[in-house]
Amino acid sequence: MTRVGVIGATGYTGLELVRLLLRHPKIKLTALTSERYVGQPIWQVFPSVIKETDLVCQALEVEPLVQACDFLFTALPHKTAMEVVPGFIQRGLKVVDLSADFRLADPKVYEEWYETHTAPTLLQEAVYGIPELHREEIKRATLVANPGCYPTSVILALAPALKNKLINHRTIIADSKSGVSGAGRSAVLSSLFTEVSENFKAYKVTEHRHTPEMEQELSRLAGEKVVITFTPHLVPMKRGILSTIYASLTKPLSENEILDIYRDFYAKEKFVRLHPSDLLPSTADVFGSNYCDLGWKVDKRNNRLILLSAIDNLVKGASGQAVQNMNLMLGLEESLGIEIVPIYP
Amino acid sequence: MTRVGVIGATGYTGLELVRLLLRHPKIKLTALTSERYVGQPIWQVFPSVIKETDLVCQALEVEPLVQACDFLFTALPHKTAMEVVPGFIQRGLKVVDLSADFRLADPKVYEEWYETHTAPTLLQEAVYGIPELHREEIKRATLVANPGCYPTSVILALAPALKNKLINHRTIIADSKSGVSGAGRSAVLSSLFTEVSENFKAYKVTEHRHTPEMEQELSRLAGEKVVITFTPHLVPMKRGILSTIYASLTKPLSENEILDIYRDFYAKEKFVRLHPSDLLPSTADVFGSNYCDLGWKVDKRNNRLILLSAIDNLVKGASGQAVQNMNLMLGLEESLGIEIVPIYP
Amino acid sequence: MTRVGVIGATGYTGLELVRLLLRHPKIKLTALTSERYVGQPIWQVFPSVIKETDLVCQALEVEPLVQACDFLFTALPHKTAMEVVPGFIQRGLKVVDLSADFRLADPKVYEEWYETHTAPTLLQEAVYGIPELHREEIKRATLVANPGCYPTSVILALAPALKNKLINHRTIIADSKSGVSGAGRSAVLSSLFTEVSENFKAYKVTEHRHTPEMEQELSRLAGEKVVITFTPHLVPMKRGILSTIYASLTKPLSENEILDIYRDFYAKEKFVRLHPSDLLPSTADVFGSNYCDLGWKVDKRNNRLILLSAIDNLVKGASGQAVQNMNLMLGLEESLGIEIVPIYP
Amino acid sequence: MTRVGVIGATGYTGLELVRLLLRHPKIKLTALTSERYVGQPIWQVFPSVIKETDLVCQALEVEPLVQACDFLFTALPHKTAMEVVPGFIQRGLKVVDLSADFRLADPKVYEEWYETHTAPTLLQEAVYGIPELHREEIKRATLVANPGCYPTSVILALAPALKNKLINHRTIIADSKSGVSGAGRSAVLSSLFTEVSENFKAYKVTEHRHTPEMEQELSRLAGEKVVITFTPHLVPMKRGILSTIYASLTKPLSENEILDIYRDFYAKEKFVRLHPSDLLPSTADVFGSNYCDLGWKVDKRNNRLILLSAIDNLVKGASGQAVQNMNLMLGLEESLGIEIVPIYP
Repeated sequence: MTRVGVIGATGYTGLELVRLLLRHPKIKLTALTSERYVGQPIWQVFPSVIKETDLVCQALEVEPLVQACDFLFTALPHKTAMEVVPGFIQRGLKVVDLSADFRLADPKVYEEWYETHTAPTLLQEAVYGIPELHREEIKRATLVANPGCYPTSVILALAPALKNKLINHRTIIADSKSGVSGAGRSAVLSSLFTEVSENFKAYKVTEHRHTPEMEQELSRLAGEKVVITFTPHLVPMKRGILSTIYASLTKPLSENEILDIYRDFYAKEKFVRLHPSDLLPSTADVFGSNYCDLGWKVDKRNNRLILLSAIDNLVKGASGQAVQNMNLMLGLEESLGIEIVPIYP
Repeated sequence: MTRVGVIGATGYTGLELVRLLLRHPKIKLTALTSERYVGQPIWQVFPSVIKETDLVCQALEVEPLVQACDFLFTALPHKTAMEVVPGFIQRGLKVVDLSADFRLADPKVYEEWYETHTAPTLLQEAVYGIPELHREEIKRATLVANPGCYPTSVILALAPALKNKLINHRTIIADSKSGVSGAGRSAVLSSLFTEVSENFKAYKVTEHRHTPEMEQELSRLAGEKVVITFTPHLVPMKRGILSTIYASLTKPLSENEILDIYRDFYAKEKFVRLHPSDLLPSTADVFGSNYCDLGWKVDKRNNRLILLSAIDNLVKGASGQAVQNMNLMLGLEESLGIEIVPIYP
Repeated sequence: MTRVGVIGATGYTGLELVRLLLRHPKIKLTALTSERYVGQPIWQVFPSVIKETDLVCQALEVEPLVQACDFLFTALPHKTAMEVVPGFIQRGLKVVDLSADFRLADPKVYEEWYETHTAPTLLQEAVYGIPELHREEIKRATLVANPGCYPTSVILALAPALKNKLINHRTIIADSKSGVSGAGRSAVLSSLFTEVSENFKAYKVTEHRHTPEMEQELSRLAGEKVVITFTPHLVPMKRGILSTIYASLTKPLSENEILDIYRDFYAKEKFVRLHPSDLLPSTADVFGSNYCDLGWKVDKRNNRLILLSAIDNLVKGASGQAVQNMNLMLGLEESLGIEIVPIYP
Repeated sequence: MTRVGVIGATGYTGLELVRLLLRHPKIKLTALTSERYVGQPIWQVFPSVIKETDLVCQALEVEPLVQACDFLFTALPHKTAMEVVPGFIQRGLKVVDLSADFRLADPKVYEEWYETHTAPTLLQEAVYGIPELHREEIKRATLVANPGCYPTSVILALAPALKNKLINHRTIIADSKSGVSGAGRSAVLSSLFTEVSENFKAYKVTEHRHTPEMEQELSRLAGEKVVITFTPHLVPMKRGILSTIYASLTKPLSENEILDIYRDFYAKEKFVRLHPSDLLPSTADVFGSNYCDLGWKVDKRNNRLILLSAIDNLVKGASGQAVQNMNLMLGLEESLGIEIVPIYP
């Protein structure tokens, strides 16, 4: 049994890691950290895990963690992540980092959207953790940068189309909608129930930091530099992302022709589900699971492709994909611990 | 006091008309019809109006309605509307029709998206009821076709841009999100709380019947035929539409330059509110009111304009705008009965 | 026109006062205070009032407020209220205070549930502001203590039964359920959308500070000391309180006999609505309005009365009732500015 | 591998059985029936199970089901259940019935609250399926009547108190609150999102059919006839029941003394979790899981016990408990397939 720790266990992605790891058959959860709740059992913070675990939140100190764990998930804010991850890598631990700090290969791009990068050498080592695209590198990786939630939904939807040159990459618009857990577990006014319920709005339009991450991966797929328009929105729900993605087709294609191409591309993928064209994806159908559901329509009057992509932002968009990456890095069966049937309704 | 009737009073737009008309200072609500609840006081159907009115639902029969009313709102399903509206017009009543039946000037377009039109001659008489665009014709109209909810949000957002040739009309994509009341008060599985809550999805992608209505008005504004891509989505909330609209700019423009143009266009409009660029519209800010809130961002990296438009689908998107039209048709102050401060939170 | 100010305008009850007062025909809103947003127009804090008012949040300073206002609403946290209200009263202003500070006539009870009272002499002057019970005293009052939201719903439900000795007051249990706006506009973890949505729970069981306030008024009605059990719960919705109240009947009574007694008691009350026994109250039916809807059932097998009481906690449970009190204090028609038809759905 | 069928698979409890059984390590799901969707794969009805199963809905015909299955869950409306269950029992199958038809031991009580019972002899054979109370009988049973959702939450909360004579059973009041999935998957107006969201109300007050079921079990526990007051309410959420239960203590007891008694009673129970008194149960903490979370407070001023009980109505309140019963009937480890960590948030 690999001994696994979760750094930053009392945020929502941290708790979701705990939920998944408590039922993982091949690992043992051995350490949790939380600056805010040091000394408290995790079940006092989240009564959902009463009777499930007696693990107590500890401080983020390298030595005890290195002693207790063989593998770490770091679920910290960006900037904090790049301060602590190098220390664990040096001590020989494998790490899946859920922050943005190791997702952008080019430190200049990181600097442009975030701030100065303090561990740029690790960027070359880090692998961008979408297993459906980078499985072999992930298997060999010491550090995996777990993708952002929006990028996961957008990249998986566009990959087969870009790879097969079905669309003009200059016309890509991603209009994404996310549940509130994407904003994390911070006590801020804009995340209050009273502010969110019966409300729908866009935010950070043209400025969201997930943009360069998408463009990096989409450029790799297209073989040339891709610049997109990305608009995130906030939905009055807890979990789930639906991305509606528009692009002009390079030549007329029917929905079934596109299905053939997508089916080829994702033939062996357990966690990507392709919908028939009369049954579009919805967030409720992936709730609690590691699936990414894809569907599409062709707007023949405009020769545009409209892709629809649904994930649970805390599972395939964060902690589920992180476990999937861990499984690969540990040489385990990729789906262990994350074969969850979505909960509906 | 003008005597006013509501045909189809027990749907959601019908009840919203009742709510607004009960407080209108210059009209008297004199008749309500509902096939389903004939003989029942409306407060038994909607206890929200207990003690507010004793009006009883009657059958849809021309003669008693012509005796009781000078003015009618018809809040019926399409097809049913075109069967009954002509009779009331012939008898000299003025009508605001909330269905789709008189919105499309060209009966062939109606046939293409709906079915054969049985009252095509009335189409020439009917005025498309967006007061901000067609005020003078509405004042003289006998029959006003009240716009659809999605079209109201999209047309008001695009009008200044198209009129001033700011955008390339071949690039327009309207990604709209609506609360569930837009689906009406029908007992269908897909509108159940259990199916909608914690769920977000697109529907009728490339096929929604509000498309030709938008294209008709946008073409009038552009001075040439406009074909758009329109994608409606269902949001787990009761009221509200937010439309996110994309189009390529014909030349680089700053957000403030656009503000000047929009400010000119809507200078005298009471119900359109322009947001500063750091304060984007949201549906909660217009809840219960007749406002249309507009905002925008320029994606400089792509030279795209992103417009954001928020309305309450039952007020500015239906019954509020219908009352606004009635006020104009009766020569009353346009805002009577609909000067409602949005309810927040 | 009476010039009116709102002290603490950027909480939810503050904004609700603004919403109501902006449409009040006989007063003029002249000052708003907010410690947090000094110098900012209220519409920047709440874009729902863009174009509705240009009032700017000012600091809480007595002199400018006394100059600008004839009447004040204080919507401050308890303790802060009793520090500032005496100053305004001394300067001759009339005040409706929405905090708990002047609700309890006995300073010892206040001390027991809150802390030491620093303005105990004002307690004798203050009138408990439920107009349906204390109308004449409110008309003559300089300071009205606006009731808590839970107490309003519970007291109005029990008043006729206690006054007419229908129930054994030793058996009263009030099981109340409230929307989240009752917790105010504070950025706390427990009010996050992610924590509240799809969640239902009790809180402060046996300890809620509204208990003594209910007992004070219920004792007045019963003519002897009443001690109740009160359990508040949090409902995943924004507005609304439903109280389910249990008590043993002193003698067998039918639902219709009870209706007669309640009808007598509330015969002239505009804002209390009695439901027929086949149509129980619900929070949605009073949303946005100043109504208190009452219904009941007799559990014959146990000889228990079950009362149901619904209000909008921000209107009849706070700001609407505050305006009702102001109207009485200013000698205006009691219902001015608060005759709102509930918004449904 | 036991071959298991689900009769009535396209209701919400049916789908929840499918979700659980698809991951059960010791059974194989071999048949699903649904009158409405005969011939359709279940994933077309519920896209949440795309790629999870190819099972097709078949008609409810005895012979093919007897061939395909060793064990059945019947998730049918009451009345329909008692028409079909006897046939399966006669053919040697074991059955867990999720309807109300076999829960009441006395056919006269069934007749009083429902209608004439057509299979009264089976009533003596049927075991009421709360494993925590009737484990040994369930192990030997051929037919288990799976309890109602409300009764599960109320009975588990009261059992230790009644068994140990802590409370006066004449004073029991159960005020229960349920999510909307309890109303089933029927297209009815009152379950629409627009009618339920931002709404809270009581329903079937004094008349709910779960009352006799609770009284039967509570009487068994008390050793004498118990008559309670039960009030169900509808919460704007999908899943979850919280019951708040009041009763007078027979002698003063502290919260910790009660904890000792409850701890004894439920010492070996995996699915009952006792909360410390500063951490009350909430529905979100059991979401998706088979737990029943219990907490309590003593209202010393009234000598009343207030019990709080939270379950997921579709799991411990229905399908999870049904699987728990199946495990016992098949001689399997009781928790197989239902050891689910609650999903939070």
